[in-house]
Amino acid sequence: MDIMKKTEEMARKAKLAASAMANLSTSLKNKALLAMAKAIQEKAEDIISKNRIDVKEAKEKGLAISLIDRLTVNDKRISNMSKGLREIAELPDPVGEVIEHKVRPNGLRIDKVRVPLGVVAIIYESRPNVTCDAAGLCLKAGNAVILRGGSEAINSNMIIAKVLQEAAYSSGIPQGAIQLVETTDREAVSQLVKMDGFIDVVIPRGSEEMIKKIKANATVPVIGHGKGLCHIYVDKSADLRMAERICFNAKVQRPGVCNAMETLLVHKDIAGEFLPGMIKKFEEAKVEIRGDEKTKSILSHVKSAREEDWSTEYLDLILSVKVVDSLSEAIDHINKYGSMHSEAILARDKDAAQKFLKEVDASSVFWNASTRFTDGGEFGMGAEIGISNQKLHARGPMGVRELTSTKFVIYGDGQIRE
Amino acid sequence: MDIMKKTEEMARKAKLAASAMANLSTSLKNKALLAMAKAIQEKAEDIISKNRIDVKEAKEKGLAISLIDRLTVNDKRISNMSKGLREIAELPDPVGEVIEHKVRPNGLRIDKVRVPLGVVAIIYESRPNVTCDAAGLCLKAGNAVILRGGSEAINSNMIIAKVLQEAAYSSGIPQGAIQLVETTDREAVSQLVKMDGFIDVVIPRGSEEMIKKIKANATVPVIGHGKGLCHIYVDKSADLRMAERICFNAKVQRPGVCNAMETLLVHKDIAGEFLPGMIKKFEEAKVEIRGDEKTKSILSHVKSAREEDWSTEYLDLILSVKVVDSLSEAIDHINKYGSMHSEAILARDKDAAQKFLKEVDASSVFWNASTRFTDGGEFGMGAEIGISNQKLHARGPMGVRELTSTKFVIYGDGQIRE
Repeated sequence: MDIMKKTEEMARKAKLAASAMANLSTSLKNKALLAMAKAIQEKAEDIISKNRIDVKEAKEKGLAISLIDRLTVNDKRISNMSKGLREIAELPDPVGEVIEHKVRPNGLRIDKVRVPLGVVAIIYESRPNVTCDAAGLCLKAGNAVILRGGSEAINSNMIIAKVLQEAAYSSGIPQGAIQLVETTDREAVSQLVKMDGFIDVVIPRGSEEMIKKIKANATVPVIGHGKGLCHIYVDKSADLRMAERICFNAKVQRPGVCNAMETLLVHKDIAGEFLPGMIKKFEEAKVEIRGDEKTKSILSHVKSAREEDWSTEYLDLILSVKVVDSLSEAIDHINKYGSMHSEAILARDKDAAQKFLKEVDASSVFWNASTRFTDGGEFGMGAEIGISNQKLHARGPMGVRELTSTKFVIYGDGQIRE
Repeated sequence: MDIMKKTEEMARKAKLAASAMANLSTSLKNKALLAMAKAIQEKAEDIISKNRIDVKEAKEKGLAISLIDRLTVNDKRISNMSKGLREIAELPDPVGEVIEHKVRPNGLRIDKVRVPLGVVAIIYESRPNVTCDAAGLCLKAGNAVILRGGSEAINSNMIIAKVLQEAAYSSGIPQGAIQLVETTDREAVSQLVKMDGFIDVVIPRGSEEMIKKIKANATVPVIGHGKGLCHIYVDKSADLRMAERICFNAKVQRPGVCNAMETLLVHKDIAGEFLPGMIKKFEEAKVEIRGDEKTKSILSHVKSAREEDWSTEYLDLILSVKVVDSLSEAIDHINKYGSMHSEAILARDKDAAQKFLKEVDASSVFWNASTRFTDGGEFGMGAEIGISNQKLHARGPMGVRELTSTKFVIYGDGQIRE
């Protein structure tokens, strides 16, 4: 009951703050972002010492090393958070931008104008820097934000939120603009996702199960940031040396992230020439290969891929490999098993590339480049609040602009409808 | 079980059709739309005779006259459906439109391109013309559509869908692009709204309860087309003669629709001058007035408004009236009781108008014009599939463009991430 009341109060405060924030000047918002950047840097010691408590507990609980790595805050990560906030301050303010304008025959002037979404609730796991990025992006877009981090990072998130709040509020941002759910009780999430009228969108960032559960319970609209099961298809027309470099990059450069390659598809006409060298390179980098029958007919020593491999996001140094008879087979495979995230074709043949780019149903489709580029920063959007792999509202990396809605503003001089 | 299987098969067919439709040429789509327009006209008699069955049953069941009116198909309504399809054919094709383009420092060229949403499920009540409008709009946007009309219109919807399907498929549109749920069993809806991976968006059009129920059950993203509780605020600076014309139009011209005025807010400084004449005009048009204390102190004969009046969408010749002390009180009232649909300020004072347009949180805000203009046609969008009053994806009237998603298409020449 206490949690319910607290969450409700939080949402009310956020809604009040949001209506004031819609009218803040760009310069005030930027001043606050720079003050937040400075405060994060100045309070580095406090943040790191609180983070040590979380890291210690995570180790005691025996959490995976990759999770502990993501949880850890150090000087470099503090600098990156601070830099992120400064970059957000430099982005153009999306609020008030007129994106369509028309004059109707009856003289009505109609503008479609960007406005804040209102109250954004973000539910995320482990990485404390999300607290900082999300608060900065939402502030720039004129939204109030309710942050709900993972229980494993609660001490880190609480100090980061406190530092950001103090800096923002003393710069003139209304109280309630940045709030952190300070309980780790799941009840709070179940409640937040049903608060239509107070919360305008819920953005879950984390495991597939977590997102699925939120979607099943929510009545507030949800933008899911889900898994990345990305493919590269090497066409028979590909420049095979380029293909080797790109495929290696997409798998090995950072295997634990959502835009890394999980399945390699190779056209049968060049499989015999391409795969032996490519797989040797992967094996030298300790990548475990799981091949289909045809791959094994070329390289008999590799492990056999099972049906579930095609739908597994490894996030690890493991790669499934399949030899396909045609471009169409590659496209069908991707549309069947892919997660609509990032998909690439490597080809010289322009027609093949165009067919792939058109028919593959994903948020980002690449021709002759690594899937690893799907990222707000790499796409020139400054920071990102995540990568949407649904089709509504925003698809792909989401930045400040994707955290806005629109409003029709109509100017008349007495028009009535006949 | 049979219904479940049928619905599943329908969704599978729709998904298959959708992937073929993403690549249809504009000219093929337009040819199909014109064939559909022609077929609706040619089969007018068949449609009207099936509609008579629905109307007869509705009368036997004692449905409200307004519902029976909406259900009825006559020659004029046939012509309007046909005309709507021809207008959709004339609209520019949104699919393939490049809406953003950038070249990154590493040479990557990034296009943000409009693509179809995929499979759209529309759940609606009574008006059979929605079957035709929705099919036409979805086709133009390259989407497959699953139509679920109300049980009271099942015979009308079945014949309209059949006529549209025959014309579309014989023009080269893939089978499965237009499908109607032919059962009136509610199980089919419960199932549709949970078919993630097959259905990309659910658009409910109808009563508030119906939309609420769908949102509570859906896992597929929903765009709700909800109620319209619209206000007009007459500022102390208003041109009172213009105000009288606009307020009369917004209430009386068509009271049963979502963009009609339900509450009139009047600044206290001009209430004594404005209200007597205005209310007299309303009463002559048989509008029942429900006023607050201050209204009654000016015109003691009017009925008293109760608290629930401020949140009631009458859709009828009833109007609640409130005298406010200030612009801010008007804005607060609207943001508290409004449905984020259409809100107007009538004022000469530019600063007052700007404050209103900025601070009122609605999909469409008007200055010196009737709220009745919120409409896809009036906004120059051709037809509309409805009016969204949520903030995500599309807000306000939704046309062909709002039935699309986007995709990032990235052109490289061997880029890898460092």
